[in-house]
Amino acid sequence: MAPRFFDLPFEPVMQVLSGRSGEALRSRREQLGWAESETDWRRLVERDDIDLIDICSPGDTHAEVALAALAAGKHVLCEKPLANTVAEASEMAVAAQNAASRGVFSMVGFSYRRVPAIAMARRLIAEGRVGQIRQVRVSYLQDWLSDPEAPMTWRLDKAKAGLGTLGDLGAHAIDLAQFVSGETVDAVSGLLHTFVTERPLLGKTVGLSGTASAERGTVTVGDVALVTGRLSGGGLASFEATRYATGRKNALRLEISGSIGAVAFDLERMNELEFYDAEAPPATAGFTRILVTEPEHPYLSAWWPAGHTLGYEHGFTHQVVDLLEAIAEGRQPEPSFDAGLQVQSVLAAVEASSEASGAWLTTDNPAKPREMS
Amino acid sequence: MAPRFFDLPFEPVMQVLSGRSGEALRSRREQLGWAESETDWRRLVERDDIDLIDICSPGDTHAEVALAALAAGKHVLCEKPLANTVAEASEMAVAAQNAASRGVFSMVGFSYRRVPAIAMARRLIAEGRVGQIRQVRVSYLQDWLSDPEAPMTWRLDKAKAGLGTLGDLGAHAIDLAQFVSGETVDAVSGLLHTFVTERPLLGKTVGLSGTASAERGTVTVGDVALVTGRLSGGGLASFEATRYATGRKNALRLEISGSIGAVAFDLERMNELEFYDAEAPPATAGFTRILVTEPEHPYLSAWWPAGHTLGYEHGFTHQVVDLLEAIAEGRQPEPSFDAGLQVQSVLAAVEASSEASGAWLTTDNPAKPREMS
Amino acid sequence: MAPRFFDLPFEPVMQVLSGRSGEALRSRREQLGWAESETDWRRLVERDDIDLIDICSPGDTHAEVALAALAAGKHVLCEKPLANTVAEASEMAVAAQNAASRGVFSMVGFSYRRVPAIAMARRLIAEGRVGQIRQVRVSYLQDWLSDPEAPMTWRLDKAKAGLGTLGDLGAHAIDLAQFVSGETVDAVSGLLHTFVTERPLLGKTVGLSGTASAERGTVTVGDVALVTGRLSGGGLASFEATRYATGRKNALRLEISGSIGAVAFDLERMNELEFYDAEAPPATAGFTRILVTEPEHPYLSAWWPAGHTLGYEHGFTHQVVDLLEAIAEGRQPEPSFDAGLQVQSVLAAVEASSEASGAWLTTDNPAKPREMS
Amino acid sequence: MAPRFFDLPFEPVMQVLSGRSGEALRSRREQLGWAESETDWRRLVERDDIDLIDICSPGDTHAEVALAALAAGKHVLCEKPLANTVAEASEMAVAAQNAASRGVFSMVGFSYRRVPAIAMARRLIAEGRVGQIRQVRVSYLQDWLSDPEAPMTWRLDKAKAGLGTLGDLGAHAIDLAQFVSGETVDAVSGLLHTFVTERPLLGKTVGLSGTASAERGTVTVGDVALVTGRLSGGGLASFEATRYATGRKNALRLEISGSIGAVAFDLERMNELEFYDAEAPPATAGFTRILVTEPEHPYLSAWWPAGHTLGYEHGFTHQVVDLLEAIAEGRQPEPSFDAGLQVQSVLAAVEASSEASGAWLTTDNPAKPREMS
Repeated sequence: MAPRFFDLPFEPVMQVLSGRSGEALRSRREQLGWAESETDWRRLVERDDIDLIDICSPGDTHAEVALAALAAGKHVLCEKPLANTVAEASEMAVAAQNAASRGVFSMVGFSYRRVPAIAMARRLIAEGRVGQIRQVRVSYLQDWLSDPEAPMTWRLDKAKAGLGTLGDLGAHAIDLAQFVSGETVDAVSGLLHTFVTERPLLGKTVGLSGTASAERGTVTVGDVALVTGRLSGGGLASFEATRYATGRKNALRLEISGSIGAVAFDLERMNELEFYDAEAPPATAGFTRILVTEPEHPYLSAWWPAGHTLGYEHGFTHQVVDLLEAIAEGRQPEPSFDAGLQVQSVLAAVEASSEASGAWLTTDNPAKPREMS
Repeated sequence: MAPRFFDLPFEPVMQVLSGRSGEALRSRREQLGWAESETDWRRLVERDDIDLIDICSPGDTHAEVALAALAAGKHVLCEKPLANTVAEASEMAVAAQNAASRGVFSMVGFSYRRVPAIAMARRLIAEGRVGQIRQVRVSYLQDWLSDPEAPMTWRLDKAKAGLGTLGDLGAHAIDLAQFVSGETVDAVSGLLHTFVTERPLLGKTVGLSGTASAERGTVTVGDVALVTGRLSGGGLASFEATRYATGRKNALRLEISGSIGAVAFDLERMNELEFYDAEAPPATAGFTRILVTEPEHPYLSAWWPAGHTLGYEHGFTHQVVDLLEAIAEGRQPEPSFDAGLQVQSVLAAVEASSEASGAWLTTDNPAKPREMS
Repeated sequence: MAPRFFDLPFEPVMQVLSGRSGEALRSRREQLGWAESETDWRRLVERDDIDLIDICSPGDTHAEVALAALAAGKHVLCEKPLANTVAEASEMAVAAQNAASRGVFSMVGFSYRRVPAIAMARRLIAEGRVGQIRQVRVSYLQDWLSDPEAPMTWRLDKAKAGLGTLGDLGAHAIDLAQFVSGETVDAVSGLLHTFVTERPLLGKTVGLSGTASAERGTVTVGDVALVTGRLSGGGLASFEATRYATGRKNALRLEISGSIGAVAFDLERMNELEFYDAEAPPATAGFTRILVTEPEHPYLSAWWPAGHTLGYEHGFTHQVVDLLEAIAEGRQPEPSFDAGLQVQSVLAAVEASSEASGAWLTTDNPAKPREMS
Repeated sequence: MAPRFFDLPFEPVMQVLSGRSGEALRSRREQLGWAESETDWRRLVERDDIDLIDICSPGDTHAEVALAALAAGKHVLCEKPLANTVAEASEMAVAAQNAASRGVFSMVGFSYRRVPAIAMARRLIAEGRVGQIRQVRVSYLQDWLSDPEAPMTWRLDKAKAGLGTLGDLGAHAIDLAQFVSGETVDAVSGLLHTFVTERPLLGKTVGLSGTASAERGTVTVGDVALVTGRLSGGGLASFEATRYATGRKNALRLEISGSIGAVAFDLERMNELEFYDAEAPPATAGFTRILVTEPEHPYLSAWWPAGHTLGYEHGFTHQVVDLLEAIAEGRQPEPSFDAGLQVQSVLAAVEASSEASGAWLTTDNPAKPREMS
């Protein structure tokens, strides 16, 4: 969609779709409109006609693919979380810095940054409209594990998914809190918890979950993460990531309270942003429901007339636009692998705090300038 | 409640509760805390120790009681609609004007004017915050007749209730539209319709409806009123009053759109007012949900801290406060019987238009200054 | 998008984009990804490699283009309203019936039928979940004419746009009321009104409106339409179409109240449908906010996991899917030109009623079977 | 109001209002309708004509007054939190148990238990409608300290207010979580934080805050409490209590997610309860907004017709009703001082956890049966 609505510096060509299984891959390639398919990603990296690689595989494969791609001079867009461990993420961040010095760029796919209402919230805060930030609250609520008979998927397997709900949903929560507030989470106290430890093995994938088979597997990641944090500006943060919030399907909610204002957002109503201006006269103060569909709003001038809403996929469209523009201009796209690493370090601190009975741990921000290798 | 939260000019004494049936009346009197009860309202009017009479009986009795009370020098608070016909209402309005010249005052019980969010909407419009009014929409939605087996009550009998849904709910809708906008409805085109024409006779009253008996009675009033109107300022109005809005229990909704702003209200969320300021910057414009519980809001300084909400009955509390203050200051309380007559004339025009196949009829405002008799 | 998410019977090729101005057309063609552009639509109709023509030009051109295309054996998708007059629409409907008998099909672009929540509302009603329909309310609220200095566009010129707000927004309102209820609007009483009769001529188009020039033009269409209607099943309908609902950007709202249930929808929250089940136990009855993103919902199994929302454009995607499937199966796509003609006749009756001071007029449904020519 | 709407076992007489300052007390007594006033509460306790004492003074006085009143054979209603320390609360609980054995009863004023929607949520959970409880979230959000120049009040002074926001708002949050879920909070990890440590001293009290003087005082209580907890049934809880949630005036929010359902509530919309039934068919599942105004709902049969809402004060009305009924029937009213003590012990554990860097501490439920003294 990106080239149809935005003036892009390049005309993207969807050349090769890579995957494991030959048959499924071929039919998927056709449906999605890729020119070719390929089961060995290494061959992809070697090809001269590929400029950009988009890594959407499970987290345990990110580092290997990204390192190879960057080494081969390909730009990389890597799905979040950046990796399954801080060690992998660090290696990737170093490789990304090196590549960037050669004009080869990389970006992490925190696509919710590109939801216009989220970008608008960040703009309001950057403009000082909420003042000093006191509290940030982010919860990412889903419910597809509420049913104890919902089957195992790779997302529940620590070997593949790393941090489970914390890595999948919590990574978005942490990134958004930092992106919108413009601050970092510098210390955390956290709890990870698994409600259902054994689940039927997967028969067939359906949506995020799937159908069950008779055998059972062990859930090795957390179902729920509850986190309290301290922000770099002196404020407090609280996070919840769960797949047990019965009735909440994709409720990524954010509320930031500051000394002179507040913003509130819910992904289930992604075209709306609520803004409270504490400096308004008391008789007319209140949360204003901004329908983020005006040409004055981020990304919106490219789309429909006011009031015509966007959906989930448009965050990805905007991500492609931002990435290609940065590449064309020879500047580092955001969020960089450094930013991905920093989120990873917060997640790692949460996991460590949970194992240390909720002790407060610093996130030891590793995304500071370091020596190029 | 009024004397507990407001500084009243009088200490009201609840002296006599009047009604038809002796037994029910006595137990009711006790529960409600009246000093005495009385089955003959005429004796009430004759007593010297009664200063104010509150008429809450069905509409067909309003005129007789009010005229007698005013003649006897009693202040009168009369439930809406003022009467069942324009003729009765006219007679009452004349009597009220005469009484007022002797310092005896009367008021119609359009209690929703005293809901703080409604009073706040009026204030915003009076201050010019919505600009020139283009459109007014008021719907009063209830659903207690959705079930065709819901029984007959006096509210469905034209002899007692006059105009049915139009008189009961529509009167509120018309009054609010005029009160909040500060304009009058000068012409109407309307439709009255009855969906269920026979209903089981009432066994016992329960809430607004009741339990059924085996016999059936004929519904002689409209179930639904749909009205289009022209406002004195050049704008348009639309009204709906219905008891068939399945799932809506008491949704009196008002939205007023003007050249530079708008207000929106729903009685089911009576502590909230939505305000749109079209002069705000486009990027932050939107409907602001004002929680009308601040000391700056009408009536609120007498109540709880901000954020602590009021309920249905507080409109009546405020009505008593406003009435007693006006009487103490020797000025005409609003809404006067003239205002009640004017609403009555709009209702009558709607009924006539419905009978004339939706023809536009002027409401022939009878509330203009006239000769004192 | 359609071929990427749905299994289509054809692989659509975007061959020729047609328009008036050469330069704008060329740049638009490139951006939108069409293979060629063409300034003379007649040449398009003559080409053998074109199977389907999508008519998106102003209403005054629909009939000529559609008739030529159908005569040339091209399938036709025509933007709503079908035409600017009933006469044109009738001619188109006859041509469409003739073409259909030769396997050449046509469809009107009432794209909101394809919003999943709308399709779901229709399904619930078809399944009897709201019972006998008592009241239908549809309002289509926009505000881009609130500002009297908003410029003239072709949409305000009767010669081009036919019925103004009534034709543009009101056509959607009427179609949705009928589509969701499964009934027809058989009689209407209506009012068309123009608040601002002179506006600055358009400098440059921006969104739905544009920038102003110094000259002024005359608005020859209605700004607002207020309509009361009678439904074929005995219920009542009320419609409002306006571009003066300050603060409402694209609020197409529908509420249908029946004997045992109700549905409510607002296009500004297009992924949600509210459903009230009057047969639920009173203690837990209420409007249920259904997030229409489950695989069980219309069109949704092709899209994202539950909770991931769709936007405005997806109605058009679904429209293409439904059209191509019908063509492939050799059956009449819905809504047919007959359906478009029937809506047109309702709009014409509204206009005539407004001219006849709100008189009730039958819509004289012309979409009944007739002789093939 | 209680005797006007409910059949009470007693006719309450408002006999004596007690306070410190003679002048303010007298005028307050008059306005509120008490027969007498008294500046020495000890004399009150000695009077034979007083049956029930309602303690509404700051938390540091609760224990002394309650112990004296119970010893003198007066029933006691004590405002929450029960005391400022667990030691005081324990002494009160023992005294209350002893008094109860003599037919003298006591109750803590957790009035929000009496909000009908809250009582309805508890009923649904008790009936098994949400299944096994996985997560409880309660936040109590106010914003009257957002402004650093908002003045000191006794609520910010540890000597008077004990636990600050945690004791004032957090006590409600903990009590509601336990009351609605039917479980106890058995372990906690918490953080207390003070954003603004110096504030202008109070000139005059206005609402919950007041006007400022030139001098400054030190805030000695926490502004914000963030708590993670473990429930007795194996679920997790998270709590937030803050007076810095800019724009939130009195948002006591609760959401409970269970294996087959969920409930959600917000005190700013106190007449509504949202209920999600995970066993409903997927196509019509969703949160149902129950307007808690039906005769089938707790407390509601005594009030208005369906759809007519209640306000903040009605929780107190219901509290009086429940208290008097329990006294009349000679049974322990709920919540007892034991329940108040148990909440106090949770609050104490939160405070201790905060001092111990977030360590998990058991709440060591002291409300179990113990030896009578």
